[in-house]
Amino acid sequence: MTQLSRLSVLRRLRGVFSLLKAGSASSRRPWPGHGQPSSTEGGDVDLGTVFISEVIGTGMLTLLGCGVVANVLLTRSKGFNGGWLLINFGWGLAVFAGVFVAYQSGGHINPAVTLGILASGADEYAPGVDITIGSTFTYFGGEFLGAFIGAVVAFFAYRKHFEAEEDETKKLAVFSTGPELRSYGWNFLTEVVGTFVLVLVVLSFANTPNELGPLAVALLVVGIGASLGGPTGYAINPARDLGPRIAHALLPTSRREIRVPTAGRYAADPGTGPGPGDEDVPAAPQRKSSDWKYAWVPVAGPIVGGVLAGLLSQVVF
Amino acid sequence: MTQLSRLSVLRRLRGVFSLLKAGSASSRRPWPGHGQPSSTEGGDVDLGTVFISEVIGTGMLTLLGCGVVANVLLTRSKGFNGGWLLINFGWGLAVFAGVFVAYQSGGHINPAVTLGILASGADEYAPGVDITIGSTFTYFGGEFLGAFIGAVVAFFAYRKHFEAEEDETKKLAVFSTGPELRSYGWNFLTEVVGTFVLVLVVLSFANTPNELGPLAVALLVVGIGASLGGPTGYAINPARDLGPRIAHALLPTSRREIRVPTAGRYAADPGTGPGPGDEDVPAAPQRKSSDWKYAWVPVAGPIVGGVLAGLLSQVVF
Amino acid sequence: MTQLSRLSVLRRLRGVFSLLKAGSASSRRPWPGHGQPSSTEGGDVDLGTVFISEVIGTGMLTLLGCGVVANVLLTRSKGFNGGWLLINFGWGLAVFAGVFVAYQSGGHINPAVTLGILASGADEYAPGVDITIGSTFTYFGGEFLGAFIGAVVAFFAYRKHFEAEEDETKKLAVFSTGPELRSYGWNFLTEVVGTFVLVLVVLSFANTPNELGPLAVALLVVGIGASLGGPTGYAINPARDLGPRIAHALLPTSRREIRVPTAGRYAADPGTGPGPGDEDVPAAPQRKSSDWKYAWVPVAGPIVGGVLAGLLSQVVF
Amino acid sequence: MTQLSRLSVLRRLRGVFSLLKAGSASSRRPWPGHGQPSSTEGGDVDLGTVFISEVIGTGMLTLLGCGVVANVLLTRSKGFNGGWLLINFGWGLAVFAGVFVAYQSGGHINPAVTLGILASGADEYAPGVDITIGSTFTYFGGEFLGAFIGAVVAFFAYRKHFEAEEDETKKLAVFSTGPELRSYGWNFLTEVVGTFVLVLVVLSFANTPNELGPLAVALLVVGIGASLGGPTGYAINPARDLGPRIAHALLPTSRREIRVPTAGRYAADPGTGPGPGDEDVPAAPQRKSSDWKYAWVPVAGPIVGGVLAGLLSQVVF
Repeated sequence: MTQLSRLSVLRRLRGVFSLLKAGSASSRRPWPGHGQPSSTEGGDVDLGTVFISEVIGTGMLTLLGCGVVANVLLTRSKGFNGGWLLINFGWGLAVFAGVFVAYQSGGHINPAVTLGILASGADEYAPGVDITIGSTFTYFGGEFLGAFIGAVVAFFAYRKHFEAEEDETKKLAVFSTGPELRSYGWNFLTEVVGTFVLVLVVLSFANTPNELGPLAVALLVVGIGASLGGPTGYAINPARDLGPRIAHALLPTSRREIRVPTAGRYAADPGTGPGPGDEDVPAAPQRKSSDWKYAWVPVAGPIVGGVLAGLLSQVVF
Repeated sequence: MTQLSRLSVLRRLRGVFSLLKAGSASSRRPWPGHGQPSSTEGGDVDLGTVFISEVIGTGMLTLLGCGVVANVLLTRSKGFNGGWLLINFGWGLAVFAGVFVAYQSGGHINPAVTLGILASGADEYAPGVDITIGSTFTYFGGEFLGAFIGAVVAFFAYRKHFEAEEDETKKLAVFSTGPELRSYGWNFLTEVVGTFVLVLVVLSFANTPNELGPLAVALLVVGIGASLGGPTGYAINPARDLGPRIAHALLPTSRREIRVPTAGRYAADPGTGPGPGDEDVPAAPQRKSSDWKYAWVPVAGPIVGGVLAGLLSQVVF
Repeated sequence: MTQLSRLSVLRRLRGVFSLLKAGSASSRRPWPGHGQPSSTEGGDVDLGTVFISEVIGTGMLTLLGCGVVANVLLTRSKGFNGGWLLINFGWGLAVFAGVFVAYQSGGHINPAVTLGILASGADEYAPGVDITIGSTFTYFGGEFLGAFIGAVVAFFAYRKHFEAEEDETKKLAVFSTGPELRSYGWNFLTEVVGTFVLVLVVLSFANTPNELGPLAVALLVVGIGASLGGPTGYAINPARDLGPRIAHALLPTSRREIRVPTAGRYAADPGTGPGPGDEDVPAAPQRKSSDWKYAWVPVAGPIVGGVLAGLLSQVVF
Repeated sequence: MTQLSRLSVLRRLRGVFSLLKAGSASSRRPWPGHGQPSSTEGGDVDLGTVFISEVIGTGMLTLLGCGVVANVLLTRSKGFNGGWLLINFGWGLAVFAGVFVAYQSGGHINPAVTLGILASGADEYAPGVDITIGSTFTYFGGEFLGAFIGAVVAFFAYRKHFEAEEDETKKLAVFSTGPELRSYGWNFLTEVVGTFVLVLVVLSFANTPNELGPLAVALLVVGIGASLGGPTGYAINPARDLGPRIAHALLPTSRREIRVPTAGRYAADPGTGPGPGDEDVPAAPQRKSSDWKYAWVPVAGPIVGGVLAGLLSQVVF
């Protein structure tokens, strides 16, 4: 029921600062998560479990998520040019799989969701996981590490297609998002809006009984991608963007780094340059860039959007 | 069970006129909505909550719905030319998200649904929300205001793409529906049929236990869009069309209003006109039109379709 | 549990002939249908309700089903050229909507399903509907009439697009199925296989608790269309094909019948023929054909496939 | 809850070797499967039922799965060129239908799933089916035989389109997977990763209550196909690849074997060769190859991936 009285709102807003208390005793409004068993009578999931659970879940997320972009963008992949809806379903079902395997920690797999739950005034991140500074950073750590690992595995699953691809811009797009029309302010706003939608609807799940479980989040992400992904590629998750961007910087993704051998149908020796009749091959391999100038947008935007949604949920839900 | 006896039908048809009674005491057949908690023992959700709930839900609907059209239509958007099924899923999942966040008011987010429930002879719009003149107009008010706000936010999320787009017809299409073959009578009929399907199937949910919750409405809207959206673009919701149309009229959507500066890859100064070599740029920016002549069709059609479905549901369900 | 003993199979096969008994007293294995309320203690849904329920459900099926084909095939429709998956989702969600509104009769909306349930040895078509000669033909009657009516409404929803379309083959395809490579024997086999899959899986739903309700049938039909629809367009339902084919024969679908007036962007007077410069317009309007020679295939194939699935279900489920 | 202590892990790893014990008495952790009724009080589903169930389920899988590839690849099919997402949904819903009809054996329909359950330390393959050498090979037998039969039926459903198709490579692709960039090591790795994801997430379903039933597996397979299917076509199932490959070798799929007669719109007599003006027809029919050199990859990769997922599930779930 909606508490519209100003007093009540202010009182609940203090929930945001419950972070400062190490493990509140009362579990006034636990976060229901997505279908966990309620068999946590002791109430305590240890933070090691939370960490591993988020690593696995967020790893699954970027493995499948970066995978679908590789499939659609990289030349000679079977899903090449498969369309935006294919990318939307790929990322949506990546969330689906990620939330399932991260069931022990409530399947956040997204720092913006963690922050949104915090800002919503909930007392638990998942059944048996109290909201504290320690648990918050445990979530963050697992999310960023998992996102990094998942992108690395996706790279190796598509290893030969990275070799075969000459467009370095596409390779970065497999890992991280980027704007179609670069304008940091507007791009930031778009990410705020997309993440606001994600976290507000996820918080509404807690009040609406349904048996969809992780499917509800998955479909929501399909929808956000279809509707709000056009300008910036919908990071809506700081870990999903930054983790893979670091992976891109470290992995030998470019043909210059891979040193593709001369022979082969699609390969050209980047050391010697193309022969005279090789018109399709550029004169020199493209330079690799992880576009660090843009990297703050898909981190800051989702954080702001998630916190705003959490705060609003205190007022309207 | 079906009451086919004429007497029974007539008796139930009076339900339509229950509007005139302020808050009927008996809750003979409450509208189950989409998965609300039944924890409304007092039975009274205040109209302020209903209003805010419908504003948020319908705002979510047009934010995501207008968003997907922007993604598919506006040049340089990542989902450009993504196909009709992408649009169908975008709008369907916009309904999905909208119904979830509007759970406190039963998630109508559509005046045609409100009217259909009224015409069906139900006694409540949602658990704890009696059907009265006041509650009916509270729904309408929230729906139209929310639809307006959502379209405004969608505009800002795609702000740079509105700047980059030169085709003013596409910009209107982001906000409101329009017919492919203009013929007010047939266009009206198509909207009646589409909304009739929407409301009749939604009313059947009440009699058919399933755990899909808002997913059922979402998939239904995907189906109506795929099947009956071809001629007019399936408004099937007066608020979804009129609210964004007003937003289109008020917002600086056209390049003439935006006064795009000369510099930039895709921009051309509409004040001075293109230079001699600028063959892609039209001689003068297109005139902006919100096509008010058509605006009555996607309002009147859904109203008639929704009421017809509500009345028929009294006979056949 | 599977009864593999020959005796048991033979005993159960007699269920097929339970048709001859008017209303068996014992309800040994009622057909669970798709989520009906179990509030039929008296056990008797009258046949008038069954008839109207199947008319509405099958009407919904062909309204949305023929609608999606019109959307994809007819020139100047918004979903023009939308692809096979759009057609698959359109028909699948048409089943979704149809089963919901026909919940009172168990949502058969397909004579092959009715016959499959009969052949499976069930005792009821739906909770409270005994299997008798009378109820069987009541289902058939409602299914064929509904399929006819739905196609008529779809025609009127796309009325202007039928006017604008010059290819009469496409118009027939909106109503009825046809083979890509005509070969009556192989086409028949393909329809047998597709319907066998439909009915066998639908019968397995009865033994597998899930909360998907009509969504399960809908997704199954999406899958059959994607996988087995390639050769013949997957009628897999005698009513879905024959009802609309009759509608096609009776409705003024061709430009010759419509007598499109001379003026207009896309119209040409079929009476006078095109002018000299009108190169896009054929010399004379195409002849209309409802392809009656093929009409037996999508009726007989589904009947055989449905009965085979029902019989096999007695052995393996 | 996670058992991270080394002792506990080692103890549970012995579950892999429970295979050697014929029918363990205690059912410590039964495999919940996908929505089976818990009406197996006696606890014993006989292996004949398991065998038939897996034959039917895996047959359904490859019938619909090979069917969708035929639909998209074979010339003159209605879904020709329908895109990667259509293939993903076709295979996903093939799993959906297959798991439903194989409900009596827990719907493995994939030796990698069977092995993953074994490696996970579960005590039952399905309610009432103990894990023994006998039951394990019964699953394998049913899965491979079913996969063979389903492919044969798919061939006959598309019989005329196999005749009409001249590209023998496409015909093999209907039956079995193949890499886009052949590199046995990397292709193997891709199959390991894809199957690892499949089995790990499927094992997590057991700990996460949801009412999706077979839909969860279906959507997971859609996601894996979208994300990880690009390099090798996602066999992720030894039976799905080997069974149809054998069918391809035995069936008269090539025009040389079919001996297409001279007459007909699309046929050319492979015995005499094309006439002078027949430029579309190759000089001689292509040679048929079932690509046996690659056949080990989609068998070994999924086995390794499934076992790894099962072992990891002991540590993290």
